Amino acid sequence: MSTTTELYEKYRDKMRFIADVKNANAVLQWDQETYLPKRGAAFRGQQISTLSEISHRLFSEEELGNLLQDLLSKNDLSAEQKRNIEKTNEDYLKNKKYTSEFVRKLSEQVNKAFHSWIESRKQDSFSVYEKDLDALLQLKKQEAEILGYQHHPYNALLDEYEKGATVELLDKTFNNLLPTLKDLLDKILKSPQVDDTFLKQHFPKQQQWAWGMELIKHLNFDFDAGRQDMSEHPFSVSFNCNDVRITTRIDENDFGNMTWSCIHETGHALYEQGLPEEQYGLPLGEACSYSIHESQSRLWENNVGRSKHFWQHHYPALQKDFPEQFQNISAEQFYDGINKVQPSLIRTEADELTYHFHVYIRYELEKKLLEGSLSTHDIPAYWNEHYKKFLDVEVPNNKNGCLQDVHWSHGSFGYFPTYSLGSFYAAQFYQAAKTDLRNLETEIQNGDTSSLLNWLRQNIHSKGRFFTSEELCRQVTGTGLDVRYFINYLLDKYNSIYTL
Amino acid sequence: MSTTTELYEKYRDKMRFIADVKNANAVLQWDQETYLPKRGAAFRGQQISTLSEISHRLFSEEELGNLLQDLLSKNDLSAEQKRNIEKTNEDYLKNKKYTSEFVRKLSEQVNKAFHSWIESRKQDSFSVYEKDLDALLQLKKQEAEILGYQHHPYNALLDEYEKGATVELLDKTFNNLLPTLKDLLDKILKSPQVDDTFLKQHFPKQQQWAWGMELIKHLNFDFDAGRQDMSEHPFSVSFNCNDVRITTRIDENDFGNMTWSCIHETGHALYEQGLPEEQYGLPLGEACSYSIHESQSRLWENNVGRSKHFWQHHYPALQKDFPEQFQNISAEQFYDGINKVQPSLIRTEADELTYHFHVYIRYELEKKLLEGSLSTHDIPAYWNEHYKKFLDVEVPNNKNGCLQDVHWSHGSFGYFPTYSLGSFYAAQFYQAAKTDLRNLETEIQNGDTSSLLNWLRQNIHSKGRFFTSEELCRQVTGTGLDVRYFINYLLDKYNSIYTL
Repeated sequence: MSTTTELYEKYRDKMRFIADVKNANAVLQWDQETYLPKRGAAFRGQQISTLSEISHRLFSEEELGNLLQDLLSKNDLSAEQKRNIEKTNEDYLKNKKYTSEFVRKLSEQVNKAFHSWIESRKQDSFSVYEKDLDALLQLKKQEAEILGYQHHPYNALLDEYEKGATVELLDKTFNNLLPTLKDLLDKILKSPQVDDTFLKQHFPKQQQWAWGMELIKHLNFDFDAGRQDMSEHPFSVSFNCNDVRITTRIDENDFGNMTWSCIHETGHALYEQGLPEEQYGLPLGEACSYSIHESQSRLWENNVGRSKHFWQHHYPALQKDFPEQFQNISAEQFYDGINKVQPSLIRTEADELTYHFHVYIRYELEKKLLEGSLSTHDIPAYWNEHYKKFLDVEVPNNKNGCLQDVHWSHGSFGYFPTYSLGSFYAAQFYQAAKTDLRNLETEIQNGDTSSLLNWLRQNIHSKGRFFTSEELCRQVTGTGLDVRYFINYLLDKYNSIYTL
Repeated sequence: MSTTTELYEKYRDKMRFIADVKNANAVLQWDQETYLPKRGAAFRGQQISTLSEISHRLFSEEELGNLLQDLLSKNDLSAEQKRNIEKTNEDYLKNKKYTSEFVRKLSEQVNKAFHSWIESRKQDSFSVYEKDLDALLQLKKQEAEILGYQHHPYNALLDEYEKGATVELLDKTFNNLLPTLKDLLDKILKSPQVDDTFLKQHFPKQQQWAWGMELIKHLNFDFDAGRQDMSEHPFSVSFNCNDVRITTRIDENDFGNMTWSCIHETGHALYEQGLPEEQYGLPLGEACSYSIHESQSRLWENNVGRSKHFWQHHYPALQKDFPEQFQNISAEQFYDGINKVQPSLIRTEADELTYHFHVYIRYELEKKLLEGSLSTHDIPAYWNEHYKKFLDVEVPNNKNGCLQDVHWSHGSFGYFPTYSLGSFYAAQFYQAAKTDLRNLETEIQNGDTSSLLNWLRQNIHSKGRFFTSEELCRQVTGTGLDVRYFINYLLDKYNSIYTL
């Protein structure tokens, strides 16, 4: 008979081995987006599929299942060990539901759909994409059946990204929020508009890059445990807490494009760099959930990175680095400009208010696609109609409409809602941080965000997946997720900027 | 009963799957040398070990062995298919000799030895390295026993890098060569010396980089199927023929350091880019051997890249790019300078003549370490004594002496001889190319090396591992390896430069 310690170590070693394969695959993906030469794409796709197949196989082995069963019956595990075993067992049982054939089929269809998405954007033609997207959707419907669900097939997919999230809960959340947002938006649009044209001047690439790198350093991104590179779409990825990478892109005619994407990805990266090293490969060494991850990126991007305090410190340096562009713009004008509300076509460029209409439209659409009340063919019409309805925006072409996001081509149905949840959690966490750290805003004003980072490390990052999102939120803020924090945050900000 | 075609396809798919894992591991290693953040090293080492273990396991599976046996008995395979099966079977049987435990032990000891090598160089202290190197040496002795050999244990390790190479053959080759080289060296050193100080001026980093990139493009390195980056030690690596990467380093006070390393690595890369795509993962999709690989890098670096013809085209452009450094240096002076013979401490910086003494000293040393007539502790003394004896060079410290090369810390005993063999093959191949391509030198003089590349593609690259080095040499040049080609090449060059 093995002791609990022996069994646990065996489990831990197996999980680390699997993590090595998954993280190796993440390196291949990072390289694909940053440095891969053009003709390397096909073999790279194949190499990624192979490693996915291996990690799926390893994580489906009977031996691991038996080990987990043995460990679940032990009563001398620490609370952390117990939680690791429970979470791993959940993941294991879920993973076992997929056959290798289904995994391969899905991965192949994703590859197809991704390439036809790229092509459809080039040609600005939804029909180029439609067939492959539909085949992928059918597989995702099958996946919902494989996973099982209550009430609505979309719940199975939501659960993938956000444990416990359901159509019922999300409907309630959005129903609570949207009328207030709509009301606020109407008021703002009737007020005198703020100017942000100074952000759309020419900002040379090399200078923007240098500025972004400085900013990231300032936010305590650890460059000994990570790096930043360029890619077409910014993202963050972690191979372990000592190697976390972010990317950015630069638009020479838009200062905001790189700057807030840098801060956003840094928020993700600070979370990953703060996960406990000794838990590598285990649930407690992983981020809590997608929405909590997004709460970290949004908190730094918006609650910190679009605040008056933050720019009180950084704006003088910015004016010094870009005198031509900013010398005649006051700190006040700058702050107003970077917070301008303006209904627009592109989600990733949306302001903090209208952003959630973008998410809501996708959420509703995905729900309908999954339940079958809408077909793939109907997407463009539905899209354009609802952008008009919610944002009063005419969609001129599909490229800037329903083809703008990569997610569906990855098969990521159920992902979008975590973007909104992230903002809501961010507002609630930031309020709690302000309560705990009395001098927080003064510190930020002095250019020091380290105690905020320490607070996040202690309260959120170091916990890994010990708690669910909801449990973590209760631990940190005293209550479960409450959108009123977010609403109040927006009201505070826009009442002052637009003097409503 | 499966048909031969079905069996062959099954075999091919298995091999491609294994190749995906090996190539993924190569990506991890490339990243380790180019972009890995400092603190990421430990987990990266672990991830690399894990993928090595997986590919070892996959390549040891009984099912693959049975498949190979089945295929070996088929008589309806094409010649190429048959050769693939035979070579794979050789590799398979060799791989099966290693237990997983031995593979892991070796990989762990390599990791240890590599890190103490780094540290020993920092401290310039052989003793920091000695213990780990010795442990690794003992494992390599074990490996020789595991693999089996005739006459000399070193033969087992030589065979790893160069199928068919033996102590007997190498002794004979060096014995044929060294007296002539020594004689030539003595004559050169007694002649009036050429000046190369103009190569040691200041050459700004960014300008060198741009120059190197232009040169590589000119040599027809395909940037759609590869890239160049910076690393501490230049190397080339391939993930498949459509993704071949090289690296370089820049010394601002030495023009030669980057330039010929760029050409050298490009030579390796052109070989890899020229391997047949449809043979990915199979022996015929792999390079023939280490020495043939080195023949490609040395051919481009020296036979082409240090020739008068080549610089007749490129020197005017070089003078234009670096007017300050080269305006007063004639083409003749430049050619003489880049071919200066000068006994020195560092192998990688050695001229084409003294280079082979560096290799020979290491070869003799390795042989003695393997047979046990020399112990690890004796290395520095042996080294210094023989550098004095063969090159009349005093070794001032171990960092520039026996600690200069990474190979032993990787466990690569038996590798060095392929460096010399590469030069010998290069001279013989180049002579054959000149015979086949009557206008070759005129074309090179006009800046066009494409027909040389096509010739190499057709005669060498496209063959993969179909032939052994010796067979390939016979195919291409009409005879087996003959060092007289190399000797004549050197005599031609130095007789003219030093007017002997």
